[in-house]
Amino acid sequence: RINGSRLWDSLMEMAKIGPGVAGGNNRQTLTDADSEGRHLFQKWCDEAGCTMGVDEIGNMFARREGTDPDALPVYVGSHLDTQPTGGKYDGVLGVLGGLEIIRTMNDLDIKTKHPIVVTNWTNEEGTRFAPAMLASGVFAGKHTLEWARDRVDADGKKFGDELDRIGWKGDEKVGARKMHAFFELHIEQGPILEAEGKDIGVVTHGQGLRWIECTVTGKESHTGSTPMHMRKNAGRGLALVTELVHEIAMKNQPNAVGAIGHIDVYPNSRNVIPGKVVFTVDMRTHLLDKLNAMVAEFEERAPKLCEEIGVSFSCEIVGQFDPPAFDEGCVKAVRDAAERLGYSHMDIVSGAGHDACWINDLYPTAMVMCPCVDGLSHHEAEEISPEWAAAGADVLMHAVLETAEI
Amino acid sequence: RINGSRLWDSLMEMAKIGPGVAGGNNRQTLTDADSEGRHLFQKWCDEAGCTMGVDEIGNMFARREGTDPDALPVYVGSHLDTQPTGGKYDGVLGVLGGLEIIRTMNDLDIKTKHPIVVTNWTNEEGTRFAPAMLASGVFAGKHTLEWARDRVDADGKKFGDELDRIGWKGDEKVGARKMHAFFELHIEQGPILEAEGKDIGVVTHGQGLRWIECTVTGKESHTGSTPMHMRKNAGRGLALVTELVHEIAMKNQPNAVGAIGHIDVYPNSRNVIPGKVVFTVDMRTHLLDKLNAMVAEFEERAPKLCEEIGVSFSCEIVGQFDPPAFDEGCVKAVRDAAERLGYSHMDIVSGAGHDACWINDLYPTAMVMCPCVDGLSHHEAEEISPEWAAAGADVLMHAVLETAEI
Ligand SMILES: NC(=O)NCCC(=O)O
Ligand SMILES: NC(=O)NCCC(=O)O
Repeated sequence: RINGSRLWDSLMEMAKIGPGVAGGNNRQTLTDADSEGRHLFQKWCDEAGCTMGVDEIGNMFARREGTDPDALPVYVGSHLDTQPTGGKYDGVLGVLGGLEIIRTMNDLDIKTKHPIVVTNWTNEEGTRFAPAMLASGVFAGKHTLEWARDRVDADGKKFGDELDRIGWKGDEKVGARKMHAFFELHIEQGPILEAEGKDIGVVTHGQGLRWIECTVTGKESHTGSTPMHMRKNAGRGLALVTELVHEIAMKNQPNAVGAIGHIDVYPNSRNVIPGKVVFTVDMRTHLLDKLNAMVAEFEERAPKLCEEIGVSFSCEIVGQFDPPAFDEGCVKAVRDAAERLGYSHMDIVSGAGHDACWINDLYPTAMVMCPCVDGLSHHEAEEISPEWAAAGADVLMHAVLETAEI
Repeated sequence: RINGSRLWDSLMEMAKIGPGVAGGNNRQTLTDADSEGRHLFQKWCDEAGCTMGVDEIGNMFARREGTDPDALPVYVGSHLDTQPTGGKYDGVLGVLGGLEIIRTMNDLDIKTKHPIVVTNWTNEEGTRFAPAMLASGVFAGKHTLEWARDRVDADGKKFGDELDRIGWKGDEKVGARKMHAFFELHIEQGPILEAEGKDIGVVTHGQGLRWIECTVTGKESHTGSTPMHMRKNAGRGLALVTELVHEIAMKNQPNAVGAIGHIDVYPNSRNVIPGKVVFTVDMRTHLLDKLNAMVAEFEERAPKLCEEIGVSFSCEIVGQFDPPAFDEGCVKAVRDAAERLGYSHMDIVSGAGHDACWINDLYPTAMVMCPCVDGLSHHEAEEISPEWAAAGADVLMHAVLETAEI
């Protein structure tokens, strides 16, 4: 068994970096706080006797040697970056849980044939720079490094410049590493495990996602002196499209979701009719055909709704992944570990995207989930219990030990 | 007649300060650009032989002496601040038109019994610091100086601190000055004069306004892993309220308007369901009873709409004025001047709020309006012709000369 209180202490220590305003964290990718979190992780890895590699996109790889010099490593890990008003566990549990299994293996003097590598993937959240899972996506060959470096944040800063600025651009080629397998421990971020009273979610599939960045263009003019019939109010386009997204998600129940989380209004002045609104639609379901049909319906109806009120609509996909099915062998290793350790468990579909979804395209991959209180995530009040964290890390360790061969 | 090309040159010179991104201006109140614009205006007033007074809220008063030491001055003026994506004429024409009539009176060696004072009122636009017409409102006793200094902008900066920072806090008590009369020249900001082919609008009344700052509170959570039935999406509250505002304005036609220009979404992340949206509703009509009825309907229905989708609604009035009727004598002076000069003219109601609306509560006041292209204002493409500007300033001068007694 792993050391649950040591894991918990590390989670609390990391949470001191980039504190939020309401008990959670704001440690967005490529900020100074991100850099500080990376330094702390590196220090802990050094103390655990690992060697650190960093690639050109800032992905960190802390390696514990195996006994067979020719064996490919078993990778674990997740991400240390957070939402602007994020929690203390989303991503962090997977990285520090990975570190904890190495610490435990050191304590118990356990040797594995395959090396173990703990990874911190850069920019998983995708808030500051869309899309999410950007650096694992480059690792998996979904995007080029150049394209990733050109992503811009809301202030016009480039991903590549910010990576260089915080000093975490390494010199390893992105994606050069080969893996024996990859395991990611993560909080569920939804309500199912808690409601079902299960300690462990054995993740068999993930949802597919489309991020559709939309621009509604009207005409800026005075809110007071422009007669109603002369208005081209882009804000009304946003309103109609907001309800359209909701309607499409509702009629594709069960297991489909849709919402708009990001909205920028121009010029955003109390007495100017919005001339332009830019916003991102997030649509998901774990059935690829359904997902494509939802997007097709959206792309057909949104422009018409806008046209009817005299504003124009355009859109572009800025993030996407198809629903992944994880590797049967790795999934079984997770299920068997939970069973062996006596934890209650169930198979589950991930509602969120994860770095594991990209890595799954290249190497045998699976995920371990633990419950979170009220299914709440992407919220500063995100919470888990120390027991849930420990159970998740225990299962992770046993799945890894089986795969890495003692 | 005033010197139309000198007036136009001054307008173009001022427009170089705080340029926008599309040919207009971004010279928001209490920014460095605002300070620079004030210095240029002061220099021009000095050159025209005026003495400058500045009050504690930064209102500027450039005085040309009269022949009777006991006579109260006739005031003219408007504002030099702009919207974030504003035009070159909104406000500026009234200030520089005022300066032009003094320059013309100097050229022609015209003496008046009453002194003439050209005013630049601080923060008319109300974009950076709500409400609009803030400093003329303090002058007219609508707000206290302390309250005004406590207004905060979107970055949390205080009005008072920013006024001190740019160095334009004077030592005159706000509102200490007495006026014989006040005249404001302004572009119409609407389409009526151009459509009717009139050179001059004789403003008899203004619209009443309510700015209602609304907060819709839901619950931040993950866009992917939160099932639809567990969502509290504040963005949907915004959508429903946007359409409600439109509906209320439409059913109160003619002569009523309503829209939402300012929207802030929290935490504004693509994969977080909005937990809070703050936005400002702008409702106007020139009939007080209708205005109150519109607001009452809004305040009754908006919370219900939000409740139905599981989010909560609260609101607060952050800007308001009742429909003003301008002084009959001053209005007649404007109409007579247009008539005498041979300009086509019509009586008109102002769709926008103006500093003149507040001053009208204390002293005899009227406004002169000139057309603007396509009725477009609060837009960088706001445009007028040099002829329209000159006609407006001519009428302003003749109304002032009659009132100030040659
Ligand atoms: N796990 C997680 O929240 N990832 C961010 C990408 C997504 O929105 O699913
Ligand atoms: N004239 C003008 O645009 N004033 C700003 C206040 C308003 O919104 O009416």
